[in-house]
Amino acid sequence: MSAFKSLKDHFQTIDNFAHLHAICGWDAAAMMPSGGNEARSRAMAELSVHVHSLKTQPQLAEWFDKASDESLSVDEVAQLREMKRNWQMSNIIPKELVEASSLAGSKCEHAWRTQRTNNDWQGFAKNWQPVVALSQEEAQIRAQATGLSPYDAMLGIYEPGTSSEALTHTFDNVKQWLPNLIDQVIEKQSKESIILPSGTFDTSKQKALGLEIMKLLQFDFTHGRLDESVHPFCGGVPTDVRLTTRYDENEFMQSLMGIVHETGHARYEQGLPKALAGNPSGTARSMGIHESQSLFFEMQMGRSAPFIHHLSQSAAKHFPEHDAQLFESSNLNKLYTRVKKDFIRVDADELTYPAHVILRFEIERDLINGNISYQDVPELWDSKMQSYLGLSTAGNFKNGCMQDIHWTDGSFGYFPSYTLGAMYAAQFMAAMKKTVDVDAVLRSGELTPIFDWLSSNIWSKGSLLTTDELVKQATGETLNAEHFKQHLMNRYL
Amino acid sequence: MSAFKSLKDHFQTIDNFAHLHAICGWDAAAMMPSGGNEARSRAMAELSVHVHSLKTQPQLAEWFDKASDESLSVDEVAQLREMKRNWQMSNIIPKELVEASSLAGSKCEHAWRTQRTNNDWQGFAKNWQPVVALSQEEAQIRAQATGLSPYDAMLGIYEPGTSSEALTHTFDNVKQWLPNLIDQVIEKQSKESIILPSGTFDTSKQKALGLEIMKLLQFDFTHGRLDESVHPFCGGVPTDVRLTTRYDENEFMQSLMGIVHETGHARYEQGLPKALAGNPSGTARSMGIHESQSLFFEMQMGRSAPFIHHLSQSAAKHFPEHDAQLFESSNLNKLYTRVKKDFIRVDADELTYPAHVILRFEIERDLINGNISYQDVPELWDSKMQSYLGLSTAGNFKNGCMQDIHWTDGSFGYFPSYTLGAMYAAQFMAAMKKTVDVDAVLRSGELTPIFDWLSSNIWSKGSLLTTDELVKQATGETLNAEHFKQHLMNRYL
Repeated sequence: MSAFKSLKDHFQTIDNFAHLHAICGWDAAAMMPSGGNEARSRAMAELSVHVHSLKTQPQLAEWFDKASDESLSVDEVAQLREMKRNWQMSNIIPKELVEASSLAGSKCEHAWRTQRTNNDWQGFAKNWQPVVALSQEEAQIRAQATGLSPYDAMLGIYEPGTSSEALTHTFDNVKQWLPNLIDQVIEKQSKESIILPSGTFDTSKQKALGLEIMKLLQFDFTHGRLDESVHPFCGGVPTDVRLTTRYDENEFMQSLMGIVHETGHARYEQGLPKALAGNPSGTARSMGIHESQSLFFEMQMGRSAPFIHHLSQSAAKHFPEHDAQLFESSNLNKLYTRVKKDFIRVDADELTYPAHVILRFEIERDLINGNISYQDVPELWDSKMQSYLGLSTAGNFKNGCMQDIHWTDGSFGYFPSYTLGAMYAAQFMAAMKKTVDVDAVLRSGELTPIFDWLSSNIWSKGSLLTTDELVKQATGETLNAEHFKQHLMNRYL
Repeated sequence: MSAFKSLKDHFQTIDNFAHLHAICGWDAAAMMPSGGNEARSRAMAELSVHVHSLKTQPQLAEWFDKASDESLSVDEVAQLREMKRNWQMSNIIPKELVEASSLAGSKCEHAWRTQRTNNDWQGFAKNWQPVVALSQEEAQIRAQATGLSPYDAMLGIYEPGTSSEALTHTFDNVKQWLPNLIDQVIEKQSKESIILPSGTFDTSKQKALGLEIMKLLQFDFTHGRLDESVHPFCGGVPTDVRLTTRYDENEFMQSLMGIVHETGHARYEQGLPKALAGNPSGTARSMGIHESQSLFFEMQMGRSAPFIHHLSQSAAKHFPEHDAQLFESSNLNKLYTRVKKDFIRVDADELTYPAHVILRFEIERDLINGNISYQDVPELWDSKMQSYLGLSTAGNFKNGCMQDIHWTDGSFGYFPSYTLGAMYAAQFMAAMKKTVDVDAVLRSGELTPIFDWLSSNIWSKGSLLTTDELVKQATGETLNAEHFKQHLMNRYL
């Protein structure tokens, strides 16, 4: 057997175990009762160690050596590159650290579910300190191996090819125009009259509405399902995508748009190249590109006037007992583009969202680089929130630094992907509009031309191209944040 | 580290992977959309191979050798015995056969879900032939290693210590009195007037009723949950028991009693000794003892008059729109002890159930011993059904030999456990009544004394004792089928 074929088989084995991890991870968030956590954490830590041992088997080095001399097609060269990147990522970290991080992360994340509700920073900090320390240790090891700074080395896990220097440059530019724009828009919107949701919105009806919109978005229900979890996410595997949401009986809008967002992630997964299933080259390109798909669904399509018209009609049908004026397109339009300075990132509007991300980026960069301590985080959070959005989170941990799941299990370096995703999404829409009459397609409700563009330019490519190549092939240029700025000005001014 | 400690650690690792298998297996039955099956089957086959490789690592033989010379407590000796039994079971079967069986079983079981609905014997037989062939191969290998007949070697997986000779002897005795008893009871019941369920029983109300009865039965919801699947089962792990049922909108009784049954399995799992968690000695003693707990809940408690009184009150409360006479204790009593000769084992009443099991035992014994072919099964099924229950299944595969999930994935040797369980349950009840006023406890609705007896005599023992020791310590004698016969006569004549 060729070394390349041996590598492909081996990565298929790894993917089989990753499949079990994805399903059991979804289960832990969406299904598992609290008493199941201890044994589940142990089982998943054992699995992580096993996957790590598969990724670090000694014969792999030899196979990679041999494979580089074998005669390979262009696609196979890309497959080899992604397998090697995956391998190098794992081989940097010792087995003991992988196991310790997985255990500490599971423990911290699980306790966080109740600690956050109780605003219990002291309790959380006790579990979080080892998570931070282990992540710093991991970042140091990655930094030594790559010659990058500790934080940049972590960033490379999620966004290969992106540096914190480039991010700081882009974000500093955003910080120049965003605060003013937010103030302008809030001033403009303050004069609008608006009808807010009131009364009770039965969660089973919300679910039926969500499922209807998932059908409009052509989610494939033979390869996935919709459930509930505290923190909505898109998990599972490409052949069985597990999407979650959370319902609030007091309003229907957040969960509905959350479903649109997660369906964007889900369709990317469902649309990945089947011929490369089980291989790193057949997975999503990066977290930023993943987020570009969810934000294309939510921000570029979902909050556009023609799409909101469909939401308006469906919502009115599912909630006939409510005042019909609430669901009118013009009112939903205003509601879905409402800008407000507020505490919670996942509830933030499109315009203030980058401020939430920049704040997190700056804190986690300094935390992982060792310039600040985990104990400094609440105070820093408060001071940056005051500076970027004029809000204080002093003593308000649950709506401050304890609000997100990401840091609880050590996913430092992830947050910038959200705003990179928003920027890529705007760039993809600008490019798509050159060949597709997007507004007419959205009005028609038969959205296939949009999905065809995304499928042929993004989904079907997996990780065969680098991020820069992918974006350039799709749009004619690499990341250009100007499209994002233009999109915001067009929509909000 | 002592060899005994090394073995315990190793079996904990095996249990961690078994945990993932249990959760992903539950998911495949209760959650997974159809398109997820192919990748899931591959992932679970990979996991089975891995667990098998863990159970067959060369150093285990050495550890078992050394451990037998180490100074161990009585409990540790039992732990070692169960680890060794588990190890021997696995080391008999080559890795390739484990993988082939898992793949063929997953494929056959999955396709069966629709083939059964379509009465598609030809389609099913195509997938089932390799399952049977691989099971025969497995049985041959086990037979050579144990000196037993092929079928007895399979029986030993589920019921260590039981032979088909002893079973044939017990079942031949049952065949002497059961057909007559059935006819007598049917004749007696034919004169009773009875009100049957009619109209629609909303499944969400059925679920609420089921959950209420699970609370009465002290199911621990912090360590388990209730869901739906085509074939109800009790899966998951002791710290997170996954119980399933299926609802029929046309009546509420079957699902309700199904939940009582599965809750018996679930409480056994939840009550296993926590100090032995992760070790073979901390698992359920045998499938027959497992079934004795579900049948204790269903048959000994569940269909008794005082328990039915609780069901009567709860059901009337959840379905106020139905005729209250339906839910009267006297009527539910008649409905829940109704005897009828019918096709489906899982729907069979307590009295005809042994006939269904004896039929399957005789067929699978001859199939695995190579005395008949898989193609003979439909005809044999028909002829035995005619002889034991006076019913023909000619051409009716879905209600004949295709009705059960067990044979689809090669679980041959399992069926006798159901009737062994019924017999043990009757014997446990007879023994319990010597120290507990069972009827008074059941009337009170505070069932703790019953669960205390089961916990201290059965659940907390795990597999520390052999089946014979366990039953003798609990009841003063080994299996005595006379208690079962007496129970049936008392209840039905």
